[in-house]
Amino acid sequence: MVKVAQRYALLIVDMQNDFVMPGSPMRVVGAKSTIPVISKVLKTFRDLKMPIFHCIREYRPDGSDIEITRLANFIEHTKGLVPGTRGCEIVEELKPRPGEYKIIKNRFSAFMNTELDFMLRRLDVNHVIICGTQYPSCIRSTAFDAICYGYYASVLTDATSAKNQDIADSNIRDMTDVGIVCTESSEVLKKIKP
Amino acid sequence: MVKVAQRYALLIVDMQNDFVMPGSPMRVVGAKSTIPVISKVLKTFRDLKMPIFHCIREYRPDGSDIEITRLANFIEHTKGLVPGTRGCEIVEELKPRPGEYKIIKNRFSAFMNTELDFMLRRLDVNHVIICGTQYPSCIRSTAFDAICYGYYASVLTDATSAKNQDIADSNIRDMTDVGIVCTESSEVLKKIKP
Repeated sequence: MVKVAQRYALLIVDMQNDFVMPGSPMRVVGAKSTIPVISKVLKTFRDLKMPIFHCIREYRPDGSDIEITRLANFIEHTKGLVPGTRGCEIVEELKPRPGEYKIIKNRFSAFMNTELDFMLRRLDVNHVIICGTQYPSCIRSTAFDAICYGYYASVLTDATSAKNQDIADSNIRDMTDVGIVCTESSEVLKKIKP
Repeated sequence: MVKVAQRYALLIVDMQNDFVMPGSPMRVVGAKSTIPVISKVLKTFRDLKMPIFHCIREYRPDGSDIEITRLANFIEHTKGLVPGTRGCEIVEELKPRPGEYKIIKNRFSAFMNTELDFMLRRLDVNHVIICGTQYPSCIRSTAFDAICYGYYASVLTDATSAKNQDIADSNIRDMTDVGIVCTESSEVLKKIKP
């Protein structure tokens, strides 16, 4: 890595009840167990007054803004992530506080058609710390776009989830291969503390 | 899949000498052996007069437009994909013909900061057929973005390559999981023929 001072922001991705809670048809199995680690990372960013972004999914009830490959299932079954529902809300333990940013996305990447890149530039961030769910879609797409837009990107492996460990491992391999740092949160927390 | 008439375009990704030829430091091991299958698909699209896009990488010699994680290696070692060099050219067997489109990208996805989406809309395409190299970066990023922009996407598994079969397989699994059709070219050719 080129040696420049790292200026961090935290991106917590899709930690909403519909993705996390047992019983939800959209549940990502590994997500709930990451809440304690994400909480710890979140607390550190809060203590250090570093920028925090809660990046979440929302869909219109008629499905007009969902990915075309997910439309039929959304209409017929899940109807998930609709604003105003309990399932769409961020899980209790990670609720945003005043001064933290919420980015609403309706695609995989938190950068696609959102204000995230503009806000990170304004904040002079050059390194995004990514966690949440899930590895093969929203986490990976966000991390790849971060690299594309010129940010350093780290993914917290103990604070990020997938349906199973195989999926997690193969995505970590591919992300590492393009220069995305995939590492445990304790390693990253050591580095960001001044 | 929702039943609408499928209007196809072919996207051939990164089949340039620097990615394909033995001896190149950027070589993707599986790429060369896909040339005969890609040639066959290309011939079918030519025969049917369907749109063909050659999506390729180019970098400025000083590396000012390369991903930040690839910059050091580019400067110190590869210096690949610079216009005017033999390595940057599309492999002989797949050279574009008049009437075919060339999309120059300097990121993973053929959609990122390029005119590809505008051109596909103008051509009334709703389904992109993707092949080339390599699975975990340019192929997958292009296929995910295609879905995000509302296109159906198919990836030709016998015309797409990676460094090894494990990487190919795990990427096929993840892409299939979000509704990208990953299948052999013979299956797709059967469908597109009127």
